[in-house]
Amino acid sequence: MSAPSTASTKIRGLAGVVALDSEISAIDGEAGTLVYRGYTIEDLARDACFEETVYLLWNDDLPTQAQLDELNAQLRAERAIPDAVLDLLRTTPRDANPMAVLRTAVSHLAAFDPDADADVTDRAAGYRKAIKLTAKMPTIVAAFDRLRKGLEPIAPRAEGSTAFEFLRMLTGEEPGARAEEIMDACLVLHADHGLNASTFTARVIGSTLADMYGAVAGALGALKGPLHGGANRAVMEMLQEIDAHDLDTRQYVEQKLARKEKIMGIGHRVYRTLDPRAKILGAMLEGLSEEKGDMKWYEMSLAIQQIIKDEKGLNPNVDFFSASVYYLLGIEADLYTTIFAISRTAGWTANLLEQWEDNRLIRPRAEYIGPRGKTITPIAER
Amino acid sequence: MSAPSTASTKIRGLAGVVALDSEISAIDGEAGTLVYRGYTIEDLARDACFEETVYLLWNDDLPTQAQLDELNAQLRAERAIPDAVLDLLRTTPRDANPMAVLRTAVSHLAAFDPDADADVTDRAAGYRKAIKLTAKMPTIVAAFDRLRKGLEPIAPRAEGSTAFEFLRMLTGEEPGARAEEIMDACLVLHADHGLNASTFTARVIGSTLADMYGAVAGALGALKGPLHGGANRAVMEMLQEIDAHDLDTRQYVEQKLARKEKIMGIGHRVYRTLDPRAKILGAMLEGLSEEKGDMKWYEMSLAIQQIIKDEKGLNPNVDFFSASVYYLLGIEADLYTTIFAISRTAGWTANLLEQWEDNRLIRPRAEYIGPRGKTITPIAER
Repeated sequence: MSAPSTASTKIRGLAGVVALDSEISAIDGEAGTLVYRGYTIEDLARDACFEETVYLLWNDDLPTQAQLDELNAQLRAERAIPDAVLDLLRTTPRDANPMAVLRTAVSHLAAFDPDADADVTDRAAGYRKAIKLTAKMPTIVAAFDRLRKGLEPIAPRAEGSTAFEFLRMLTGEEPGARAEEIMDACLVLHADHGLNASTFTARVIGSTLADMYGAVAGALGALKGPLHGGANRAVMEMLQEIDAHDLDTRQYVEQKLARKEKIMGIGHRVYRTLDPRAKILGAMLEGLSEEKGDMKWYEMSLAIQQIIKDEKGLNPNVDFFSASVYYLLGIEADLYTTIFAISRTAGWTANLLEQWEDNRLIRPRAEYIGPRGKTITPIAER
Repeated sequence: MSAPSTASTKIRGLAGVVALDSEISAIDGEAGTLVYRGYTIEDLARDACFEETVYLLWNDDLPTQAQLDELNAQLRAERAIPDAVLDLLRTTPRDANPMAVLRTAVSHLAAFDPDADADVTDRAAGYRKAIKLTAKMPTIVAAFDRLRKGLEPIAPRAEGSTAFEFLRMLTGEEPGARAEEIMDACLVLHADHGLNASTFTARVIGSTLADMYGAVAGALGALKGPLHGGANRAVMEMLQEIDAHDLDTRQYVEQKLARKEKIMGIGHRVYRTLDPRAKILGAMLEGLSEEKGDMKWYEMSLAIQQIIKDEKGLNPNVDFFSASVYYLLGIEADLYTTIFAISRTAGWTANLLEQWEDNRLIRPRAEYIGPRGKTITPIAER
């Protein structure tokens, strides 16, 4: 059912409006399901690694072993970042927002890529840029985190998984199998999610035939927002506030609700039932908490989930449990959104490659409700 | 007339869909008019300077002399850029795309602004950021252009108009009254234009409650695209190609049309008649060409305009004549889009301030047309 293209269609925030067709991912908000190119997120989180998922998003299907080996080799070869980008990170104030720093660094990468302004319909060049962006993002995040702590960045190695190498560059130590597995699953879970605000941003920018670096930098700008990816950081800050002041969880949540304040990590524009990623992350958090012998964050999260469900009928979203998972992996709260970004880059770039296969400018209209017919009074008489 | 918010509304590219209300600017595509808060673009280009226009876009009306003096003082005080941003420009490869460089530099400014992550509903902080962005953009563009030519950047002075100071920092010489006047009018003409792709990008990013620097960096990413602001550069390249090879203009255009290639600077998503800005710029180009004793570009432009009108019934847009105007002012072709950006920053920031007065996440949906119900085959068996 397509409405005619007239100026009479007015839908604030474009809620429910279908702006384009996509073969990449599908959300069923009623059923609470998410698929990437036909595969459920549950199957992928359990049986596919991040790099297989990246291949799936960029191509038609999961890779053969040879195709996966090739992609791994390509990603590993592109992990290093230009010296000038590293210098940029060195001279960035230590208190800068890591998402803003990542956005700047990604934008700057364009200046060092001879493909940067290649015709966007050149899919081979687009694919190379997608590889570069996906490979370099973890290096940028880890380098800035170390620099702001007064530590020297750790150079990437051309081996191991994205999850392994990211954790190694971040901490300086090789992660255990369990930590790598959890980080890998988190990257799978966040890699794409329909036409969310950052993916939509990337496609709007891409639809002007602008370059992939600019589109991904724009997407990073959107993901940083508290109503989008910025929420996972806010969830951890909420849990830490409850913990630090030894607050009663029920009382804290009820006071927030009474003041009509938003509880971060709860509710979703699309899901009417539990976000399938939250279900997987909740189970993952339970296992990790048991292993670490620290059930506090899991139990606090469960309590909040129950109260909100009872009082508002709302469910947690992907950000709700990922916060505690990253916390237990020893990652700084203000890096959580950058991990989301590392993963979602696969989806953003897949969406851009798809956009450019059959491009059309994305440009809605605003309805003007301001004054009309004014004439200029000379400034001395105003 | 508002359509109900259901998933059944599908409009590719969102053409004609009204996404939001705005009091900032209005385009009447049938009548060929553009107003900023009720004043016609013709009146503003003739009787208001850029800074008055900026004040108008950010506030309800044109400023009194005292209000204009205050804004001028604020803008002049904010022209200097942080040393680290200047260092970034120094270490950027000289062949980098100036729009990409501007995007990176603007994103980086966030790290040096204590207001960067202030609550977006704090209008005073938002207004300060809008001043900083509008004031620093010309400094960045001029500094990079000089650095890539092996020249030392010229520090901004806290005096004179935006147009004057931009031309002085770019060329190292104080511009004449006529050049300043023309540059000023160009800045007025480009300052806002409804919900164009870059303004829409800024509002989509801003609707996640992300910061103004990220939203403007995203808008710069979109403006860079050849289907948006990137067109004015392409227009000049077309004129130079015709000139350099001494081509017959009619033959060149007809061959392009026969190959179904796009003629840059022609046609518009909204205007069905002549873009009012093109009319003003055309007259401005005629005067400037006479003054400079170089009618070539104007005459070539008129010829192309006529051929396209006859053959396709299409009209030039804002980019068509601005290209030759900037050329005659002695500005490099690949800086044209950055001038557009310097001006449009006023509109982007006005739109962001308006977005945050009554924010709602802007997030349409995609219709999934990919496969369903796939199960994972173990990698060894694929």
